[in-house]
Amino acid sequence: MTARTVQLVLHYDGTAFAGWQLQPEQRTVQGEVERVLAGLCGHRVVAQGAGRTDAGVHARGQAVGVQVPEKWTAPNLRRALNALLPDDVWVAAAHEMRPEFHARFSATSRRYAYQVGTDEAARSPFRRKTEWAYRHPLRREWLDESAALLLGEHRFIGFAVRGTAPPTDSHRCTVLEARWLDRPGGLTFIIEANRFLHHMVRFLVGTMLDQASGKRAATAVSDLLIAETNDEVSPPAPAHGLTLERVTYPAEMYLP
Amino acid sequence: MTARTVQLVLHYDGTAFAGWQLQPEQRTVQGEVERVLAGLCGHRVVAQGAGRTDAGVHARGQAVGVQVPEKWTAPNLRRALNALLPDDVWVAAAHEMRPEFHARFSATSRRYAYQVGTDEAARSPFRRKTEWAYRHPLRREWLDESAALLLGEHRFIGFAVRGTAPPTDSHRCTVLEARWLDRPGGLTFIIEANRFLHHMVRFLVGTMLDQASGKRAATAVSDLLIAETNDEVSPPAPAHGLTLERVTYPAEMYLP
Repeated sequence: MTARTVQLVLHYDGTAFAGWQLQPEQRTVQGEVERVLAGLCGHRVVAQGAGRTDAGVHARGQAVGVQVPEKWTAPNLRRALNALLPDDVWVAAAHEMRPEFHARFSATSRRYAYQVGTDEAARSPFRRKTEWAYRHPLRREWLDESAALLLGEHRFIGFAVRGTAPPTDSHRCTVLEARWLDRPGGLTFIIEANRFLHHMVRFLVGTMLDQASGKRAATAVSDLLIAETNDEVSPPAPAHGLTLERVTYPAEMYLP
Repeated sequence: MTARTVQLVLHYDGTAFAGWQLQPEQRTVQGEVERVLAGLCGHRVVAQGAGRTDAGVHARGQAVGVQVPEKWTAPNLRRALNALLPDDVWVAAAHEMRPEFHARFSATSRRYAYQVGTDEAARSPFRRKTEWAYRHPLRREWLDESAALLLGEHRFIGFAVRGTAPPTDSHRCTVLEARWLDRPGGLTFIIEANRFLHHMVRFLVGTMLDQASGKRAATAVSDLLIAETNDEVSPPAPAHGLTLERVTYPAEMYLP
């Protein structure tokens, strides 16, 4: 049976989902997408996500690989999915990919944004689902300094969930971009890396804010970047401030 | 019993509400606010809204007048309400007002914003609840011209729900500001007037867009501004694009 390999680029509001990954008895994004795909294709189609977002984490660029019957061109599949998916998931784009495309393993980088709301209105219903309302005064320049330290290759053992992997090369990530942007009402932390460890962005944001608010020493982030355990990491920033913004693939993975 | 008169300034996401006004068996914003107020004050407290927003309409500045027992200062009342109200309602501010303050009758103007999303991503879960996704090409300058026509005093019979009032002075409204603003992904229509008729903003937006997209004659808005019936009005733009932004009161209504 001929099939097409399609990359779907998804937006979702993570509020009402138990995360990306399929779980029995839970409403997950993968579960919703696979349910609709099965109806369109007449059989189960695995929706392979580039990254497993946690419960409450949002996406404006989750990449999902699917193998669908020949009759489903990328634009038609996108339209059909958007007509059938629930309101909190939307297919922003669909691209036909080479057969060897794998949403997770072919990715060269992922980009996340973490929104921190520093004014009172961060608790407004229009912002509370996507921003962490954080009301402690911050030394703004410390955030810039912490972000700059993250650039390049590090073993992020200090910012990884404990016991998820032995302290070897499996913790090695290369950070391509890391910076704090000012915006009305708050700050946005942008980070792009070849890969991320589980909860890594939320641990980084939690620790950077603890440091910049004076709750922790000015060396907290730099110490953790060379630590061999995560004993000293701050609690992770809440899931709802985090958005998976983009997943990048080599140009040659796209069919012309 | 001494009492304080407090103005609450509310934000709400109208998606899950059957509008502002109390209705039996329906979830309304007034109903939620009065339920929490009764718990705090030990008796029913009427929450008097400046304007009745329809089902699905949002607010970032609905003004609400309440009479509460002396012990509730405005800042304490605000904090207590925010601790108890559901996530889709938030008290942005609370001001103590003179006893003669009336949220509806003391208001000198109301300001609304209507969001039109003209790009594809207006259907994203982050925008679809607050923007009308409108994909027809628009003659941008026709929108500016229509908005300019609205300024000043008119009898808005052509843009009123039929039969709500005899065609007398009761349709007279003075528009203080009306303009279309460009923003990434779409347009925002801003209108401020001393008062509004029921559905007036939504009728105005529906007609202005029909005209600017070429579905109606270039004189549709100007004709309706002098009409004696609403026979020729376009269907109202959907409720979810509309937000009540601000209600203005005379400075002397505020306690020093």
